Amino acid sequence: MAGSKCTRLNGALIKQVLDSVDSVLFDCDGVIWRGDSAVPGAAEVINLLKKHGKNVYFVTNNSSKTRKLYAQKMGRMGFNVKEEDVFGTAYCTAMYLKTVANFKGKVYLIGSNALKQELEDVGIQQTGVGPDHISGAQSDWANVSLDAEVKAVVVGFDEHFSYMKVNRAMQYLNDPSCLFVATNTDTRLPLEGGKAVPGTGCLVTAVEMAAQRQAQKVGKPNGFMVDCVASQCGLDRSRCMMVGDRLDTDIMLGTNCGLKTVLTLTGVNTLADAQAHQGSGCPERQKMVPDYYVESIADLLPFLQG
Amino acid sequence: MAGSKCTRLNGALIKQVLDSVDSVLFDCDGVIWRGDSAVPGAAEVINLLKKHGKNVYFVTNNSSKTRKLYAQKMGRMGFNVKEEDVFGTAYCTAMYLKTVANFKGKVYLIGSNALKQELEDVGIQQTGVGPDHISGAQSDWANVSLDAEVKAVVVGFDEHFSYMKVNRAMQYLNDPSCLFVATNTDTRLPLEGGKAVPGTGCLVTAVEMAAQRQAQKVGKPNGFMVDCVASQCGLDRSRCMMVGDRLDTDIMLGTNCGLKTVLTLTGVNTLADAQAHQGSGCPERQKMVPDYYVESIADLLPFLQG
Repeated sequence: MAGSKCTRLNGALIKQVLDSVDSVLFDCDGVIWRGDSAVPGAAEVINLLKKHGKNVYFVTNNSSKTRKLYAQKMGRMGFNVKEEDVFGTAYCTAMYLKTVANFKGKVYLIGSNALKQELEDVGIQQTGVGPDHISGAQSDWANVSLDAEVKAVVVGFDEHFSYMKVNRAMQYLNDPSCLFVATNTDTRLPLEGGKAVPGTGCLVTAVEMAAQRQAQKVGKPNGFMVDCVASQCGLDRSRCMMVGDRLDTDIMLGTNCGLKTVLTLTGVNTLADAQAHQGSGCPERQKMVPDYYVESIADLLPFLQG
Repeated sequence: MAGSKCTRLNGALIKQVLDSVDSVLFDCDGVIWRGDSAVPGAAEVINLLKKHGKNVYFVTNNSSKTRKLYAQKMGRMGFNVKEEDVFGTAYCTAMYLKTVANFKGKVYLIGSNALKQELEDVGIQQTGVGPDHISGAQSDWANVSLDAEVKAVVVGFDEHFSYMKVNRAMQYLNDPSCLFVATNTDTRLPLEGGKAVPGTGCLVTAVEMAAQRQAQKVGKPNGFMVDCVASQCGLDRSRCMMVGDRLDTDIMLGTNCGLKTVLTLTGVNTLADAQAHQGSGCPERQKMVPDYYVESIADLLPFLQG
């Protein structure tokens, strides 16, 4: 079926596609909710997919919540979800440090309490969470006290992000042996009503520029997120579908990992964005063209309820 | 003399080069001082150049001081300098808004009190200077109160840079008619003893990523800085020399404006950096190869004293 990408997923095609998969990976922000409002029908879609025997997992680049907090938020919104089915970058970054980097040492963390919690749950200590306001003069900043046990800088979403944190990260990263890991590089976090706030990518790029080094990125489109799901839940990638609202993270990840891909238009990217990639002659951009698209994941409801 | 670039400036060549120029533009950080320490011999070089009848101007991307504060700092270090000879990006950004953009309105300023002062001196009001700590939840951030009079976002060096400031700038810049101006994009600010702190470029790139727009850059290598000097002091570019420590700002500016260029090795870039550009086949990188280099501007002293 070469050439038939970016097809609207509706009618009889829904049954055909769902019959071809055992597992569905959903992004969260812009897909099943926007901010604190569930996408209408999303909870019913998730619950009915599970009733139809599908495995449902959540794969989010958002590092501001633990698996437990995600499961609680989903529960409040009526989703039937277990903590073990949620793969956020707070959890996956902890897993990356423990299993891939075999990391021993302390982390200088630009990030949330959730990321701190997930790190501690795998036995990794951190310093840095919370406000870090500036004081003194430039020479004080350059000579800021550093923790000798710190062997990695991790950057995730941090509402307390500040110049002093960029500076502290840069001073740690002057040591070439210091690891540099970022949860993700999403530029914006979509909220209700078409609103958005700056995403973790804005923080990561600032630290990268100061440190003159590139961070290892854990989140989508890096396949590590799918590896995490596969190693813990036994995923058959040839019978798996990725549903997301971003072409450069969700759809790219799906393509990179050999999954079927569905773009939903309730979040960051538009159909025109996908078609622009499709119309380009660029092989790299073709990886961001989804197999299918839906206006909203609620488009699946008529089939699931039928 | 094609092919003879990146030549060490010493011996008889110093007289030959200095005889060919009427004006010398100096970068500041990494050239005449590092942090609060003057480069040894720098004040004597500046003062002797003036005694030899040269016009000496200071062209710095650093936006953390007004012209007046720069002149005072230079005076304390023994430099014989007038306020009118200093062209920092705080002053030049105010001039850019007033003369090039013909700006009417208020500025949302991510920047220093110095930048505020220079804006106010040309009659432009601002909001935003000082700490802006986070509170509330994501939806509060997305709906943060905005000043309806703000018609431009200006980003300069700001030690109080914070997530909330990135967010506020992004919300203003969602209006496509809102101007977006940055003082400069230097990645690091060099200090004493090989130390450094994050530069304004780190802040600008974070806001650009959030806003999904590129800022108009006032500072080097944009030729506007040289235009400023020329319009106020009557510069003959064919008899002018630019001395700096950064290849991508100082030397690039000099090349772009048809000036003679001298790299000094007391700051950011090394001779190896310059030679790497020279050895590359890339025309854009050739623009960052200086005509001459010195270990320090104090290398000029023997001739000036002789």
